[in-house]
Amino acid sequence: MFSPLTKRLIDGLCGLPGIGPKSAQRMAFYLLRAAHHDKGLALSSALQEAITQVGECEKCRTFSEEALCDICRNPKRDAQLLCVVENPADVAAIEQTQSYRGLYFVLHGHLSPLDGIGPNEIGMPKLLALIKESACRELIIATNPTIEGRATAHYIATQVDRSSTRCSRIAHGVPIGGELEFLDGGTLSHAMQSRILLTE
Amino acid sequence: MFSPLTKRLIDGLCGLPGIGPKSAQRMAFYLLRAAHHDKGLALSSALQEAITQVGECEKCRTFSEEALCDICRNPKRDAQLLCVVENPADVAAIEQTQSYRGLYFVLHGHLSPLDGIGPNEIGMPKLLALIKESACRELIIATNPTIEGRATAHYIATQVDRSSTRCSRIAHGVPIGGELEFLDGGTLSHAMQSRILLTE
Repeated sequence: MFSPLTKRLIDGLCGLPGIGPKSAQRMAFYLLRAAHHDKGLALSSALQEAITQVGECEKCRTFSEEALCDICRNPKRDAQLLCVVENPADVAAIEQTQSYRGLYFVLHGHLSPLDGIGPNEIGMPKLLALIKESACRELIIATNPTIEGRATAHYIATQVDRSSTRCSRIAHGVPIGGELEFLDGGTLSHAMQSRILLTE
Repeated sequence: MFSPLTKRLIDGLCGLPGIGPKSAQRMAFYLLRAAHHDKGLALSSALQEAITQVGECEKCRTFSEEALCDICRNPKRDAQLLCVVENPADVAAIEQTQSYRGLYFVLHGHLSPLDGIGPNEIGMPKLLALIKESACRELIIATNPTIEGRATAHYIATQVDRSSTRCSRIAHGVPIGGELEFLDGGTLSHAMQSRILLTE
């Protein structure tokens, strides 16, 4: 039904996050239209260059084509404050809030012994060296509030020398602007248990 | 926040049909993970090859890297039956039903004088030559049931010599399995007007 090259393009697009066979077909036909050829060729070369040149920042392990990423190179950031996240996308999400001026450390996943992902894979030796080197005063652990993310947070906290570095976990609870009525039970019961005493 | 090459990749993905900034970012981060590099490079080369090599079938104008597409080359297809569609995706949709054994003709759009799309742009000369050459006995016009698609269907019907070639339009009405109650008013009133008399 499709020509071999068209099929190869559809197959290449299908399986990307959120892209099923129908969306892949729609995208392929869009890119094959003569009016969109430039866009498609630009995407092809951007993809090729990004994959061959983008690696990990030597310090924080986020994606970067330089040895050090923009954030690690920025002298205005507070180098004694470190936020640990699972993925580079989490860095982007926190940066968008413009409420954090420290540095990051990207685990590229979470501990998952069954998949062979242990402390070395999530970069623990590098993280501990970084904490020491920068004389980090607070480590904010912002792994996802999933079972694996929580286990990873707990493990990291046990490895840090807390006499010199505070460890904290970002708050979990009712999202701002959310309505209690529509919140899932797990989050709500966590919010009740983690209630904060109001002081005058 | 993103490195320049990462940003270029996100920009390249953003704007594809159905892909906004968040999905583009998610896809880019997915492709940059070392485990998915092979997939990304395969997509890059598939894209580059498809765009440079896939053109239009000389006969039916669907996407094909050969001079004639698979369907036009297939001797088992009924060459005297021709179905006119707006896009190659429509060919794929009809082929999936496995209910049609004739050939196709792809307009690559519809008449739209304000955008400079006239009879030549939708390939009318080629279509009329094809009808004559293949001694087409029926032309099934399957343009979309939009205002533009209907105007295009009407125009095509006026250009065909109906003494030698029947012209038909695919049926529009209540979708099979659909419920009247949830159908839009336009479709329902069309279905009422286009009712078919039951004969014994």
